[in-house]
Amino acid sequence: MDVDHSLSHETALHTSWNSSLSPGLRVESGEVVSFDCLNDSGPRITPETRSEDLPETEFVGHHLTGPVAVEGARPGDVLQVEILEVGHDDWGYTLIRSGETGKGLLPAAFPDPFVYHWDLDDDVGHFEAGIEVPLAPFPGVVGVAPAAEGPHSTGPPRRVGGNLDVKHLTEGSTVYLPVEVDDALFSIGDGHAAQGDGEVCVTAIETPLQVTARLTVRTDLDLDSPQFETTGPFTPSGRDEPTFATTGISDDPEEAARSAVKALVDHLHDHHGLAREAAYVLCSVAADLKINEAVNEPNWVVSAYLAKRLFPDE
Amino acid sequence: MDVDHSLSHETALHTSWNSSLSPGLRVESGEVVSFDCLNDSGPRITPETRSEDLPETEFVGHHLTGPVAVEGARPGDVLQVEILEVGHDDWGYTLIRSGETGKGLLPAAFPDPFVYHWDLDDDVGHFEAGIEVPLAPFPGVVGVAPAAEGPHSTGPPRRVGGNLDVKHLTEGSTVYLPVEVDDALFSIGDGHAAQGDGEVCVTAIETPLQVTARLTVRTDLDLDSPQFETTGPFTPSGRDEPTFATTGISDDPEEAARSAVKALVDHLHDHHGLAREAAYVLCSVAADLKINEAVNEPNWVVSAYLAKRLFPDE
Repeated sequence: MDVDHSLSHETALHTSWNSSLSPGLRVESGEVVSFDCLNDSGPRITPETRSEDLPETEFVGHHLTGPVAVEGARPGDVLQVEILEVGHDDWGYTLIRSGETGKGLLPAAFPDPFVYHWDLDDDVGHFEAGIEVPLAPFPGVVGVAPAAEGPHSTGPPRRVGGNLDVKHLTEGSTVYLPVEVDDALFSIGDGHAAQGDGEVCVTAIETPLQVTARLTVRTDLDLDSPQFETTGPFTPSGRDEPTFATTGISDDPEEAARSAVKALVDHLHDHHGLAREAAYVLCSVAADLKINEAVNEPNWVVSAYLAKRLFPDE
Repeated sequence: MDVDHSLSHETALHTSWNSSLSPGLRVESGEVVSFDCLNDSGPRITPETRSEDLPETEFVGHHLTGPVAVEGARPGDVLQVEILEVGHDDWGYTLIRSGETGKGLLPAAFPDPFVYHWDLDDDVGHFEAGIEVPLAPFPGVVGVAPAAEGPHSTGPPRRVGGNLDVKHLTEGSTVYLPVEVDDALFSIGDGHAAQGDGEVCVTAIETPLQVTARLTVRTDLDLDSPQFETTGPFTPSGRDEPTFATTGISDDPEEAARSAVKALVDHLHDHHGLAREAAYVLCSVAADLKINEAVNEPNWVVSAYLAKRLFPDE
């Protein structure tokens, strides 16, 4: 692939959004950049980090590579980001975080910090009990600088993108981001080797990532929020396959999601022998939350789907 | 297929849940029943119904076939419903409802009633502008009687099932329902020839349905809410394929879902030339709401996905 520029976290690292940051690189619209990204937490989490070390790893901001100034981008334009190639490390981790921020969907059930370290092949991550999680790497954070004076936490996603955690922003996909400042100021990071829709325990398979992307200014689009094009994967195999699902039913969609995940954790514990922390981790990296119905007043149905092929005995 | 019993809406029709209803049929655990079901609204909507007739079609309850008493089912058991065969009519309709109840996800944007009548082939429904919607028929309502004294509206789904509108309860799937009363008292209906996850305009492609199902009492399961097994379809073609998506980002998941659908309606209007009512209808029958992330405090990301293959020019 023809790459016009390279940018590494070694020379262009930041952990908050701020429109006053100096660009680590300046490119023309349409150029291709190869990004080298640290894992989400940067050096705060290594393959040696144990669960008992985690109380000191409270979330402080994603370790992002950038920003890149894209010549000609103006507020009101759209930055088109074509994700051309994604490569991941052979190590990853999934974290259940405690503390005041970033606690996941079931904080009451999982008050204690926990880390699982993954051994990653090209295509699968190896888990307990012979379970293999199919990988589909993507950047959890893709965004441009918000106009409002910074700094701003990288935690919440915004209309300019950021911590979208859209698992379908895989190799071959394209994301469209509303630009709010001159030169757009694009950054990327938070590598995920695999994630379920919802990212329920608050992390995916977190891993250092290499991403090659083409950055193009679009003046013909007018967006209030990011949009994207993708070919998935929508199932682990890329085809319809046997899948198990639990439902959550509530007048509060958050409670519906919570109930569905709680039921899937229970199922993985009761029927597959996983410890509850392992079950929660597996939900976060491999189970997908779908809104089955949003209109049957007053109740929503949200379900958590998990492909059966992950289990060696099914 | 060996069918043990048949049950038709002609002899066993009800429009509310009530544990005191007399069963239209009594079966042994493990027997197979062929159900003949009216469309959701029964005779209130016909192929001749026009949008201007709709103010008088306020939701009054799904027209369900049942109940079936399943011998031996006791409160605390689970009714396993294997959906063996599903057949649909060659006519269907999608309704944008006005009025006090059942108004869909964007009631402010769509205050007026509207109906679209579908011509259904075996595999696709024909829409405006050459758009073809792939069909995947399923019953929107599968449930057993709640224990609380009735009558109860069929509108809200409950822990005993009912109006789940899980689009993946297609032929070959199995749903597990918590039993609350003796003999379970199973009913089915609300045929959908196709539906998107979310069913955002409040109806799917509503159609009369024929369903063959095996009803089995399970005493070895303990459920708080329905669970199911399915092979999808998870995309129209059953394989990964090009898909467009809009995001909604908000600290309120309902608002996030609403924003994503609003953006998709705008996109279908602006880029595909659909009237807004038609765009909303297409979202309801073919776009899927996924919860991309539920943990990046305070904001959720919910996206509305629509396969590109529906459009003749893509």
